[in-house]
Amino acid sequence: MKDKTSNTSDNGIDRRKFIGRSATLATAAGAGAMTGLTAGTALTSKPAQAAENTANIGPGDLDDYYGFWSSGQSGELRIVGVPSMRELIRIPVFNRCSATGWGQTNESRKILTEGLLPETREFLKTRGGIFLNGDLHHPHMSFTDGTYDGRYLFANDKANTRVARIRLDVMKCDKIIEIPNAADIHGLRPQKFPRTGYVFANGEHRVPTPNDGSVLDEPEKYHAIFTAIDGDSMTVAWQVMVDGNLDNCDADYQGLYAMSTCYNSEEGVNLAQMMSSEQDWVVVFDLKRIEAGVKKGDFKTIKGVPVLDGRKGSPYTRYIPIPNSPHGCNAAPDGKHFVINGKLSPTVSVIDVTRLPDLFSDKIKPRDTIVAEPELGLGPLHTAFDGRGNCYTTLFLDSQSCKWNIDKAIRAYNGEKVDPIIDKLDVQYQPGHNHTSMGETKEADGKWLVSLNKFSKDRFINTGPLKPENEQLIDITGEKMKLVHDGPTFAEPHDCIIVRADIVNPKSVWTRDDPMWAEAREWAKKDGVNLDAESKVVRDGNKVRVYMTSVAPVFSMEKFSVTEGDEVTVFVTNLDNIDDLTHGFTIAIYGIAMEVAAQATASVTFIADRPGVHWFYCQGFCHALHMEMRGRMLVAPKSV
Amino acid sequence: MKDKTSNTSDNGIDRRKFIGRSATLATAAGAGAMTGLTAGTALTSKPAQAAENTANIGPGDLDDYYGFWSSGQSGELRIVGVPSMRELIRIPVFNRCSATGWGQTNESRKILTEGLLPETREFLKTRGGIFLNGDLHHPHMSFTDGTYDGRYLFANDKANTRVARIRLDVMKCDKIIEIPNAADIHGLRPQKFPRTGYVFANGEHRVPTPNDGSVLDEPEKYHAIFTAIDGDSMTVAWQVMVDGNLDNCDADYQGLYAMSTCYNSEEGVNLAQMMSSEQDWVVVFDLKRIEAGVKKGDFKTIKGVPVLDGRKGSPYTRYIPIPNSPHGCNAAPDGKHFVINGKLSPTVSVIDVTRLPDLFSDKIKPRDTIVAEPELGLGPLHTAFDGRGNCYTTLFLDSQSCKWNIDKAIRAYNGEKVDPIIDKLDVQYQPGHNHTSMGETKEADGKWLVSLNKFSKDRFINTGPLKPENEQLIDITGEKMKLVHDGPTFAEPHDCIIVRADIVNPKSVWTRDDPMWAEAREWAKKDGVNLDAESKVVRDGNKVRVYMTSVAPVFSMEKFSVTEGDEVTVFVTNLDNIDDLTHGFTIAIYGIAMEVAAQATASVTFIADRPGVHWFYCQGFCHALHMEMRGRMLVAPKSV
Repeated sequence: MKDKTSNTSDNGIDRRKFIGRSATLATAAGAGAMTGLTAGTALTSKPAQAAENTANIGPGDLDDYYGFWSSGQSGELRIVGVPSMRELIRIPVFNRCSATGWGQTNESRKILTEGLLPETREFLKTRGGIFLNGDLHHPHMSFTDGTYDGRYLFANDKANTRVARIRLDVMKCDKIIEIPNAADIHGLRPQKFPRTGYVFANGEHRVPTPNDGSVLDEPEKYHAIFTAIDGDSMTVAWQVMVDGNLDNCDADYQGLYAMSTCYNSEEGVNLAQMMSSEQDWVVVFDLKRIEAGVKKGDFKTIKGVPVLDGRKGSPYTRYIPIPNSPHGCNAAPDGKHFVINGKLSPTVSVIDVTRLPDLFSDKIKPRDTIVAEPELGLGPLHTAFDGRGNCYTTLFLDSQSCKWNIDKAIRAYNGEKVDPIIDKLDVQYQPGHNHTSMGETKEADGKWLVSLNKFSKDRFINTGPLKPENEQLIDITGEKMKLVHDGPTFAEPHDCIIVRADIVNPKSVWTRDDPMWAEAREWAKKDGVNLDAESKVVRDGNKVRVYMTSVAPVFSMEKFSVTEGDEVTVFVTNLDNIDDLTHGFTIAIYGIAMEVAAQATASVTFIADRPGVHWFYCQGFCHALHMEMRGRMLVAPKSV
Repeated sequence: MKDKTSNTSDNGIDRRKFIGRSATLATAAGAGAMTGLTAGTALTSKPAQAAENTANIGPGDLDDYYGFWSSGQSGELRIVGVPSMRELIRIPVFNRCSATGWGQTNESRKILTEGLLPETREFLKTRGGIFLNGDLHHPHMSFTDGTYDGRYLFANDKANTRVARIRLDVMKCDKIIEIPNAADIHGLRPQKFPRTGYVFANGEHRVPTPNDGSVLDEPEKYHAIFTAIDGDSMTVAWQVMVDGNLDNCDADYQGLYAMSTCYNSEEGVNLAQMMSSEQDWVVVFDLKRIEAGVKKGDFKTIKGVPVLDGRKGSPYTRYIPIPNSPHGCNAAPDGKHFVINGKLSPTVSVIDVTRLPDLFSDKIKPRDTIVAEPELGLGPLHTAFDGRGNCYTTLFLDSQSCKWNIDKAIRAYNGEKVDPIIDKLDVQYQPGHNHTSMGETKEADGKWLVSLNKFSKDRFINTGPLKPENEQLIDITGEKMKLVHDGPTFAEPHDCIIVRADIVNPKSVWTRDDPMWAEAREWAKKDGVNLDAESKVVRDGNKVRVYMTSVAPVFSMEKFSVTEGDEVTVFVTNLDNIDDLTHGFTIAIYGIAMEVAAQATASVTFIADRPGVHWFYCQGFCHALHMEMRGRMLVAPKSV
């Protein structure tokens, strides 16, 4: 932990903090008993790693890491401080958010609709125009040169086949695209080198292409599709059709390959079929060959996107057999190894990426790329790394975290009598993903491991039939793992990343030229209104545009009048220019509420089909006179 | 803190825990330096209150209290463990929840619609039938004999004039009603004695009655309405029309009176008007007189509800003048005093409820009920109690918590030279509500105070323009308040209650006869389906009812077929009977997802207007083969 006045030493121990804690304990235990212990002697003795590597961040102290947490079916992105494990903020993405107006403001609806396929927009017409739910599994940051660059986060929506981008300068989603041809995006990872670049996204489920009802119960005509999205433009660069299905994926540190696990090489449509084979595979994508293939036109254009054929026998892919139903796919920070997690096999398979060129030029066989395959325990799902050659694998069925060493595993695979397993730690219970601090980058620092456990059962006071997940924080600075905190979370984070705080540098107030409200600026220009200062009601037939500003504790308009049936757009510009001075704009009994943070503009459009006096008010507690920050929308009945 | 194997001593100190911590520190500081301190000497010395009253609940240890937290404009209810300040679960109430399907399942839509007024149901027809947002300020538990009874929580929605009830046996909302005649429900408190009984709800804003557009910009014709809801039936018992407006309220410990603050005695419609008077008031409601008035028919029936006239001169109310713009209204656990918080006045006013009978019989003047009016500092908003005669008042403008003593304040008011202020503590920053453990009951235990601060600014790593609130946990067991934890929260808890864990005893699995899915049972009966066991597709014209069950990791149906345009209802019954084994049901690219907890039934109805193969899957990570827990909805095109 660090604060604004003291430095954190290299081993993560804040010396000022340590003195503080020793002093507290001296008082606590009674001064008389403490003559043998002073702050000075404590500091000159052995470093107090065990006591100091704690989740207990004191009041006013700051976390060392940003945790970016997915929320699964909650559909949002969460920011969690690490190691405090305190949830700091939610970023609505695929969900409808009551607090921010996400899904209601014109700005958010543009983001939620403009990247959808035309047929989906048509489908949503009778459903309010947007999806109100999502299933956000895998949040990952944009990379430059093998490490996080602080620009963007990307995340998948399995429920409605979408990929979203979140701007880290303002911590808001700015792009959501629906992926054509693919179904039910699961695994997602950004290109690590030279930069992101591509965002790779796995269509998990096999469906017909096109999925228009012309093919129904003919599973042999279904396909799975791998997608490379251009992370800068948020458009699909290319797709590859594969055999089997696609689960999790990762990209290498060289910018040459990506790979995805397949748990359904059988191409089955029920549990028995999907489990029938003893082996499934990892499919490897050769990025340079694919780019060349796109260049020379070796693809079909389906729904506007180049789709290459990457099924077996294709030059673009190789299929590496892996024991039964592999799940997690994790590139090690050594830049050389991928760990493929066996799920129904107690093993993980280690692939050496330097052997992939020989595989693609058919000099070696697929299994020749495997350099280790240690047996770790039951249900290995995901592996994280400490940057010191060690791996941490979640064992779902054993409810354990298993620490093991890659080099030792390779030596064991080569016949040496060496046990790669270093330590096992019980977790509570059934871990899915895990993640280490900076662990998916070349700057993996080996300080913290988070185990995202799917069951918490008796670990917290009972919350009824629906219980929290349990994200456990584990100190991995020593030889043995040490559990330091149980962290409950609402349904249901699948994955997280843990990013050094210095990499993320958001603004505290918006800048007035932000593209988020570009359309509001255009409307204001057309209407001859200065969006940054003026209050005005513009009538345009039965369309009414209301421009107002806010400065705590007043909106610039005490009231405005419209007629029943008018289409009303209210633009609110928050002129307060102070950190944390967010206003809100709610219209009572109209179902309308939106966030307007400092120096932002937000707008909402609705039909004023309910006559009467309707108070609008600021729902963000902004001032001692916050309750008085309100005004009236007067809706005259049509007949009057 | 406590765990399952050790008892917590009366002063909240877990002795086993204390030994554990001492031992850790002994190791940390180096054994050599620690010869003077053993666990034994520490335990026999002075109790280590300062070190032990901490928010740091170790892995596997349990919180002592349930915190029920409002979420303001997020519209949900949150359960937070205290003192760990960990958010355990969210209960969707007024919001649309992507994770649980709240707002989408038939069960939740029934709750969200059946208590609305007919005109609101009409209004919502073009908006998907429900409000997607809410502004939940004040969560309070049902009482029996002056303390919490663990049955229900009640909470207001200021945004859409609703009151909700949450069942604490399953931690789900079961009733939401829209309050007629009133506008924008703010303050809400349950009757404390003999039981709840009534739930009192303040219509904050003045509007015309009826508010149908026949009166618009004529503020002199607006009214404010106080409502008593029957908490058992969730129907309006009666309403009282008042002068001024209604902000916060509370009920006494005798079952005789309720009272509400008014910050707008001016009946103004803009800031200048609302602030113009030097005095506003508290309006006191005489419950027995009102009940007698209802009995004898002294009311108008408006929108089906008896509305009594409680404006000045009425037998039902008394108006007690209070310095400028009072806000919080808090009944002390001594059963005798109410504290009214001055907001724009630096004072709080203490009312003696034993003087209210004389006030109502006109033997004394309104201000004669005031027994103390200490000046505490700038911006007093709310007061909490420790059960030892002390009060803790938030000072919004001073960003402080002020501890003061009622008896001393009364003595000072009577002319004695005594300072009622005991301690002031800086909080970070701008506190609104606060709350103490059990503090609004006769069992106030004086252990913890939470200060709900509206600005967090620099207290956490920067999350961009939208920042968390800061709920600070303060140890109040000593003479001085002691800050022990900063707790970030997403927008924007207004209030909370802190309830001893033994009072709340939810189920871990549903019982099959729960009323939540009564309609599903009726449908199954009509269709001749055993809801608890059978899988069946029932066709009824273009209506299709699909009954399926789930047992990890399979749904009972591998597939079902419908035709484009069919109205499909899917009922999923989760037959797993194990703690924490919640399934989900998502239909891909259909915007459908719902929670189905252990032994529950959930259902969703939709038009299958998108042909093709659509996978449904379990979005709750339930099993090692969770990814394989899926099936297909085959939607044949109309023309086929």
